[in-house]
Amino acid sequence: MQEILPPADIAPTRLHAAMRYAVLGGGKRIRPLLACAAGELADAPLERSLIAGAAVELVHAYSLVHDDLPCMDDDVLRRGKPTCHVEYDEATALLVGDALQSLAFQVLADYRLNEDPTVQLEMTRILAAAAGSRGMAGGQAIDLDAIGKQLGALELEFMHMHKTGAVIRAALQLGVRCGRLLDPAESQRIDHFAKCIGLAFQVVDDVLDAESNTATLGKTAGKDARSDKPTYVSALGAAGAKDLARELRADAMQAIAAFGRRGARLGQLADFIVVRQF
Amino acid sequence: MQEILPPADIAPTRLHAAMRYAVLGGGKRIRPLLACAAGELADAPLERSLIAGAAVELVHAYSLVHDDLPCMDDDVLRRGKPTCHVEYDEATALLVGDALQSLAFQVLADYRLNEDPTVQLEMTRILAAAAGSRGMAGGQAIDLDAIGKQLGALELEFMHMHKTGAVIRAALQLGVRCGRLLDPAESQRIDHFAKCIGLAFQVVDDVLDAESNTATLGKTAGKDARSDKPTYVSALGAAGAKDLARELRADAMQAIAAFGRRGARLGQLADFIVVRQF
Repeated sequence: MQEILPPADIAPTRLHAAMRYAVLGGGKRIRPLLACAAGELADAPLERSLIAGAAVELVHAYSLVHDDLPCMDDDVLRRGKPTCHVEYDEATALLVGDALQSLAFQVLADYRLNEDPTVQLEMTRILAAAAGSRGMAGGQAIDLDAIGKQLGALELEFMHMHKTGAVIRAALQLGVRCGRLLDPAESQRIDHFAKCIGLAFQVVDDVLDAESNTATLGKTAGKDARSDKPTYVSALGAAGAKDLARELRADAMQAIAAFGRRGARLGQLADFIVVRQF
Repeated sequence: MQEILPPADIAPTRLHAAMRYAVLGGGKRIRPLLACAAGELADAPLERSLIAGAAVELVHAYSLVHDDLPCMDDDVLRRGKPTCHVEYDEATALLVGDALQSLAFQVLADYRLNEDPTVQLEMTRILAAAAGSRGMAGGQAIDLDAIGKQLGALELEFMHMHKTGAVIRAALQLGVRCGRLLDPAESQRIDHFAKCIGLAFQVVDDVLDAESNTATLGKTAGKDARSDKPTYVSALGAAGAKDLARELRADAMQAIAAFGRRGARLGQLADFIVVRQF
């Protein structure tokens, strides 16, 4: 990420410094880790799946910057530090998000990620669809609409499949496409795994927002309830949400069981996502 | 554009309606026209350069939506109608811009625009660079920094080469890449033409903002002076700015003279850009 992001001493310096602030300030880097782990199953060279994962992480980072803006979640704390628009200003944060999204697609075109350029074009298509109005941005729009409403578990699933699930799935799909062509059954297993852990990720997030504190999270805790957002905790209760997370983890593990030891790293990541704090 | 944009009856419906509102509400479509005219010089099939031009127009449309937001230019009128955040709301307008950018890159991957997929990847790279922090978004950042300052003609040129010039250049470069490979001298001529008219476009915009009225423009007139923005009119005076626009047009025409009659359509577009209102 250090190398992919423009240096802060190149004009426009303030924008570049703010982009680096937004991306390099920590984060679990789960999406790149998933891209690399999925890439291993297709014998992808690590340097390629790392780049593909970095492109996905740039999309994720841009979405956090825009999500924290006053007109969206209006949050002041992210990863234990002031959010981008607090540290800089709103206009700069808007441009940071915009430029990070452009950079994500530039990265997918700049590096050779597969011998076959049509596969690389397919990666662009996958990431663009995952980020766009029928993916992440669409999920955010559904989220906005849901404030003040009580959603059932199925409606929540639809929202989160878009909002967080789409980009997590894209991370695995891109990682795989840095390597050899998998047979359809293998691809399907990885994709089912991706769906399960994408959803589990959100369920755990909801539990943490309700049960953890701001210092541990590095972002404002208890926001969902205060902003009257429907969550898995409000729909199922904390215990029910935890059960669902464990079920999704088991389902994810089942999906990759056929890979045996080769799927070990994906399994560790599923554990990391679900077991994080409870 | 009608076909490329997601239908407004597909979820999330409000977001899709707002995307269509932002893109289909008029506009001169200069960038697609330039893409098609440049494509002709490379014998590009029109249906391909139209798609490439549409991708560029989506980037342009997203930038207008974000530019009009309260934290940027805070404008309420665009193409004679309420801006996107006024018609919908700020959060939706933010997501509209984000999703339109994703869609631009999806379009470049979804359609077959050149027999050679590496050329199509190059189009992605060109558009991403033109939109990003060293292109349009960077130009916006320089623009923000320039408020209240007096810039000379060279500094203005640097700002506008990024802010509007980069995407206009990309339109022509993408159009050309929908056809056969041009020789380097031909490419250079088209690129010089693109630089000249990109700059002329901004010079004329500055003159129109100073001399025209809101009804004619369809956007708020006189904003530059009120918001203390450096413009070509503030740097050179209205007469000086008009002279510069005419010089840039002559320079542009000179650049494509070698194409003879084949460059006629590009010449007409240069006329349209410069002669628009004065």
